[in-house]
Amino acid sequence: MDLNVVVTEGGGPGTLPVEVVERKGRGHPDTICDALAEEICIRLCRHYQERFGVILHHNVDKLLLCGGSSLPRFGGGDMVEPIGLVLGGRAANEYRGERIPVDELAIGACCEWLSAELPGVERRHVEITSRIRSGSSDLTRLYARGQAGTPLSNDTSCGAGFAPFSDLERVVLEVEQALNCAETKRTQPAIGTDVKVMGIRRGVRIDLTIGCAFVDRFLASIDEYVRAKEFARDIVLEAARRVTRLEVDAVVNAADDVERGDVFLTVTGTSAEAGDDGEVGRGNRTSGLITPYRPMTLEATAGKNPVSHVGKLYNVAAHRIAANLAASSIGAVDASCVLVSGIGRPIDDPQLVDVQVSFRSPRPYAKLYELVEDVVRRELARFASLREALLERKVRLY
Amino acid sequence: MDLNVVVTEGGGPGTLPVEVVERKGRGHPDTICDALAEEICIRLCRHYQERFGVILHHNVDKLLLCGGSSLPRFGGGDMVEPIGLVLGGRAANEYRGERIPVDELAIGACCEWLSAELPGVERRHVEITSRIRSGSSDLTRLYARGQAGTPLSNDTSCGAGFAPFSDLERVVLEVEQALNCAETKRTQPAIGTDVKVMGIRRGVRIDLTIGCAFVDRFLASIDEYVRAKEFARDIVLEAARRVTRLEVDAVVNAADDVERGDVFLTVTGTSAEAGDDGEVGRGNRTSGLITPYRPMTLEATAGKNPVSHVGKLYNVAAHRIAANLAASSIGAVDASCVLVSGIGRPIDDPQLVDVQVSFRSPRPYAKLYELVEDVVRRELARFASLREALLERKVRLY
Amino acid sequence: MDLNVVVTEGGGPGTLPVEVVERKGRGHPDTICDALAEEICIRLCRHYQERFGVILHHNVDKLLLCGGSSLPRFGGGDMVEPIGLVLGGRAANEYRGERIPVDELAIGACCEWLSAELPGVERRHVEITSRIRSGSSDLTRLYARGQAGTPLSNDTSCGAGFAPFSDLERVVLEVEQALNCAETKRTQPAIGTDVKVMGIRRGVRIDLTIGCAFVDRFLASIDEYVRAKEFARDIVLEAARRVTRLEVDAVVNAADDVERGDVFLTVTGTSAEAGDDGEVGRGNRTSGLITPYRPMTLEATAGKNPVSHVGKLYNVAAHRIAANLAASSIGAVDASCVLVSGIGRPIDDPQLVDVQVSFRSPRPYAKLYELVEDVVRRELARFASLREALLERKVRLY
Amino acid sequence: MDLNVVVTEGGGPGTLPVEVVERKGRGHPDTICDALAEEICIRLCRHYQERFGVILHHNVDKLLLCGGSSLPRFGGGDMVEPIGLVLGGRAANEYRGERIPVDELAIGACCEWLSAELPGVERRHVEITSRIRSGSSDLTRLYARGQAGTPLSNDTSCGAGFAPFSDLERVVLEVEQALNCAETKRTQPAIGTDVKVMGIRRGVRIDLTIGCAFVDRFLASIDEYVRAKEFARDIVLEAARRVTRLEVDAVVNAADDVERGDVFLTVTGTSAEAGDDGEVGRGNRTSGLITPYRPMTLEATAGKNPVSHVGKLYNVAAHRIAANLAASSIGAVDASCVLVSGIGRPIDDPQLVDVQVSFRSPRPYAKLYELVEDVVRRELARFASLREALLERKVRLY
Repeated sequence: MDLNVVVTEGGGPGTLPVEVVERKGRGHPDTICDALAEEICIRLCRHYQERFGVILHHNVDKLLLCGGSSLPRFGGGDMVEPIGLVLGGRAANEYRGERIPVDELAIGACCEWLSAELPGVERRHVEITSRIRSGSSDLTRLYARGQAGTPLSNDTSCGAGFAPFSDLERVVLEVEQALNCAETKRTQPAIGTDVKVMGIRRGVRIDLTIGCAFVDRFLASIDEYVRAKEFARDIVLEAARRVTRLEVDAVVNAADDVERGDVFLTVTGTSAEAGDDGEVGRGNRTSGLITPYRPMTLEATAGKNPVSHVGKLYNVAAHRIAANLAASSIGAVDASCVLVSGIGRPIDDPQLVDVQVSFRSPRPYAKLYELVEDVVRRELARFASLREALLERKVRLY
Repeated sequence: MDLNVVVTEGGGPGTLPVEVVERKGRGHPDTICDALAEEICIRLCRHYQERFGVILHHNVDKLLLCGGSSLPRFGGGDMVEPIGLVLGGRAANEYRGERIPVDELAIGACCEWLSAELPGVERRHVEITSRIRSGSSDLTRLYARGQAGTPLSNDTSCGAGFAPFSDLERVVLEVEQALNCAETKRTQPAIGTDVKVMGIRRGVRIDLTIGCAFVDRFLASIDEYVRAKEFARDIVLEAARRVTRLEVDAVVNAADDVERGDVFLTVTGTSAEAGDDGEVGRGNRTSGLITPYRPMTLEATAGKNPVSHVGKLYNVAAHRIAANLAASSIGAVDASCVLVSGIGRPIDDPQLVDVQVSFRSPRPYAKLYELVEDVVRRELARFASLREALLERKVRLY
Repeated sequence: MDLNVVVTEGGGPGTLPVEVVERKGRGHPDTICDALAEEICIRLCRHYQERFGVILHHNVDKLLLCGGSSLPRFGGGDMVEPIGLVLGGRAANEYRGERIPVDELAIGACCEWLSAELPGVERRHVEITSRIRSGSSDLTRLYARGQAGTPLSNDTSCGAGFAPFSDLERVVLEVEQALNCAETKRTQPAIGTDVKVMGIRRGVRIDLTIGCAFVDRFLASIDEYVRAKEFARDIVLEAARRVTRLEVDAVVNAADDVERGDVFLTVTGTSAEAGDDGEVGRGNRTSGLITPYRPMTLEATAGKNPVSHVGKLYNVAAHRIAANLAASSIGAVDASCVLVSGIGRPIDDPQLVDVQVSFRSPRPYAKLYELVEDVVRRELARFASLREALLERKVRLY
Repeated sequence: MDLNVVVTEGGGPGTLPVEVVERKGRGHPDTICDALAEEICIRLCRHYQERFGVILHHNVDKLLLCGGSSLPRFGGGDMVEPIGLVLGGRAANEYRGERIPVDELAIGACCEWLSAELPGVERRHVEITSRIRSGSSDLTRLYARGQAGTPLSNDTSCGAGFAPFSDLERVVLEVEQALNCAETKRTQPAIGTDVKVMGIRRGVRIDLTIGCAFVDRFLASIDEYVRAKEFARDIVLEAARRVTRLEVDAVVNAADDVERGDVFLTVTGTSAEAGDDGEVGRGNRTSGLITPYRPMTLEATAGKNPVSHVGKLYNVAAHRIAANLAASSIGAVDASCVLVSGIGRPIDDPQLVDVQVSFRSPRPYAKLYELVEDVVRRELARFASLREALLERKVRLY
């Protein structure tokens, strides 16, 4: 293992004068794509395991959502054209002579997630086309080579992670989750699932710009819309106060022109019904956030196979290494990690492990490198259990 | 303008012990998607301008490439199933009663780019479906509101840029361009367009891992493939030497198993023919690179309208601000910039401008803030000319 | 005022992996010299003020202590040759025709301090020679020019200060004071006043090396000496625990060779009696400490006139500015300040004010410079009251 | 060896916006004291070696200069009272029954240096009193214990060094040396030896405040004085230009009031004749400079024995370690070192070695610690040859 450790001072973007963090919520078109890709992946893994005792090669991290067309109206409007979903990616569709119903499995996984997670979106609002194909012969053979022992990296790519969250990071995540939690959906059904939170911290002050779809049938008028926005803002501020002592202010749907009736009103609670399209991998990183002041990779994690795709595994492992370092006895107040794989190398043998740890008073004097190396080694030995955790949806990916 | 300036030391990731940079080349499926999205955007803009004197609302930054299926063979193989392209996004398809042939324009733009830039991919190898629709009413109205004067930001999003390039950044960009330049395509036609360059710098040593598709009909045998890889490696090392004095080594197609014949051989020069799918916005950032050690945003720039989409404009503007600061008399050895828009605000009035400048000996004593502010102001006043430069393809986006 | 503000991260040497701090205690020959020089200065100031209503020019910051010779013995030894004190420096010895008894005042001030602060040293053990002369005509005239309004800087020199103390700094200061406090002198009279504390922090562990003179007449034997060292060590560790939670260990008189009887035994409690000589300005800085990891100047503060000698005033003012910044609402966790005078300029108009402030989460976004400038201005307006505080011995100088 | 290595960015105070550096030149009272103390030390060492083949215990780092009194006049004035020198410190005055003429040796060494280096100061202008005594029994015994093999540290103290010099540091040193070089003394004999250079760098601009004594007998009038100052300023600016490309300005004797005739005129070329007193260890550090922005110790190096006094040896060794690191292949642009001894430990076994190295592009990736440790070990093995270099005056101490 080629381990590099850099010691820095201060402790992450939370110490900078300015910080910017974004999260695209559950019903945002890009997040829908991430979720569906990952659901397809899990469904395929479960099927492969149950039928063949082994997870076959697949990467279904490509998926296009083409927004539909709708006529929202206070009191309840209509969908005019359905949302289109085009499923891309690769998956083994045959094993030892047995055909695998990849498309049926994929479409089934999508439907289940949609009905469970996007209450306003009905089956008839969505048109799903699967274009999932079997993989290229070389990558499939590379995958097969690693079946016996440690899987071999399917690509030269990198993963990045960090810990702990800054105040702003905690706030942005908490706010989205508060707007999308079951309790809110019950008490404030007008608040849609398509929530985008952009947070800016300037010194000790956080400003949140929330884009939030509202559901037309729960609102009788523009006045009720305005009140619902106020409820939403209250939820936001309360959620923020739970996780920070910094000053927080929030604006919901800043571009609304209430006079003209140009507001963020939807039939289904998501702009996917009309306004916006989506793709896998265009939204939140493994942290659940978009963090320009942190190391990030462009790898979409959702949909990638959890056996050998380092674009998925290394992003999660990098986060865990950072989290373990931040929680360890070395006293780091901030840790970040970049892992780089080498195509064809065992996944537990990265080309490079770069760790950055920040300290406050007083910095450790000795054994720092041994401690860091120990944390890294332990995490790299856990890819099998990480795979299980991924299949049980216990790991955040987006 | 809310300007924040932070002064740091050292000078960018080029001073760190380790650095990781990636570029997905012209024929990589993700890059193909970026290119096609931007070509569609330019075609639409030109059409709108010519017909109506104004650029109508559109954002065509969603596009899915579903890899085809092929049987590469030394001496020349065959495509079995075509590459599928599904075009997503939004575009105004009617203006003052006149219908606009969005789909035809989009498909035409794709075909032109493909035939010009991916010589091995013929028209019959590609199946294009356009699902571009007209936009949501609120965003379209917001766009319209800004038509008269300064356009209004269509979103709350952020852009990030930096300058100058580190040695590794220069190397990775130069290497991809050398493998994909006209001269190489003429003298080494076996080198495909699907090139991915992953660079790692450890201290003064750079290691490049190149994934490069080869074209089967120009290679008679596995021996010729091996020789072609050596030619490719020579091109890589020569290109690197042009832009750095650091030690450089390179491996091409590290996962090849030459004995078994598991090599990166293609009919068309791109893995899109069989191995891999692609999406807009999953590859290179505005720098042309993927740079985990630099500030990055997740915004896809390709395909977004150049009038008001800050996800496009602010990434480019942030790069220009950084470049101007690095080139200015203040003596910064490294500069980076993050811009944050506010939905509904004029695009030349960002919510936040965060500038980070690094110095070596000796750091400026006074007037730093005035100088930085001046550079920022001048750049923010140039969005109209930036739009023209984008339409003339003079600005790198991916 | 030419104010420079640099913002750094982390927070002072307390965050480094290693830190070294030293303090020479009350009876150390260098500290004795500092104390006597300052006492002479105060005596002169008081005399000048009482007789003439004005503080005349003087700088008595030069003083040599020539160690005596002694025969320490358990149970009580003898001084063989006295300690020599040679007083140097300059002081106005005439004003409007009246002669000023500078030498008598100086010697009187020395005798008083010695009998009050070094109980083991009797008048007969010290031989004092005053060589204090009147000042050079040009500096005396420069001093006179500033008498009317704001005093003019008598030199181009600089002062440096910092705040708050790190754990190690607190420990080293507290330990010396605990060994030299009245309570210790009462209960453990064998512990002399000549104490030197050298502290090293490695990570979270502090190691103290204490050099401590013991007084022979309170110890009957080498065994009692060994026990007294243990008492001293207990006092040291208890004092340290009062001001830090870091691990602390201590060794007293590390070079003792108990077998051979080579131990730090004295007649008077200070090595000045035989082993060591001293000079003004060779020991503790205005912080009370010697701190190689902090900005320091070489200016001796003790003995310099408190009206216009910036070598004295600026060291104290720099400490106060740092302390005010560290205590202010800007949230700095560490502050340091360097002030540079210009000879002939009013003392409240330094050539340069350089302030370094460190922050933890989250760093202030705006107004930092205004806040810093405000703190600096207020401190620079206080030189008159600082002078009074110095004459009342309310300000630490060594 | 307990080695700590910290890697930082940027490269020394030369990269900061502000820097302050001072040098007290050859004829400054504090520098005179340093020089005389070291000359006495060398004379004693040579005597001990010649007579007994071994350097006996001594530390003559205490010395007081009491300025005299003078009546400078254009055309040539007079000394009124002599300069007083009181020599303190310790030196073995007997060895195996043979008396050693310590006082004669010391006074002889002083006279020789004064006549060689301060041409304007005649023997009759100086009154020398030696109060050098033999050392304390415990320290003398400790010294003796180390005679056989590696000497034992006589104290717990620390040394600090750095390299390379910043522009300002080079300028301040060069300017003093230019004003005091033989060529200047020949062509501009009016320029005295008592030169103090205070340098401030603000960004790319250096301002020098020079205090420079002028010799009355070479100047017929105030006009000639003014012209001589201009000559001196030309020498200063020319010297600065030799070692920096930064802008430099200089003021000589800023407090002069030419109208009133309050100028820095002397009979001997040094303020020691009347204006100012001096002590060992109050001026330049081992670098030849006073550098508040660099690690410094308070140890006087001049006069300390070169065999075992770590206050001398470790300051020099720390500078050499830093210089070797800065010159080594690791590519550090700045290095500093702090060494801490332990009383009674062999001098080549410090309690602590703390090394700080700064890098620019690109930072070394591996083996940094081995390389640093190697440099440190080699330097610590050289104390015997360092002692010889000190006795041959080949090492700067003040």
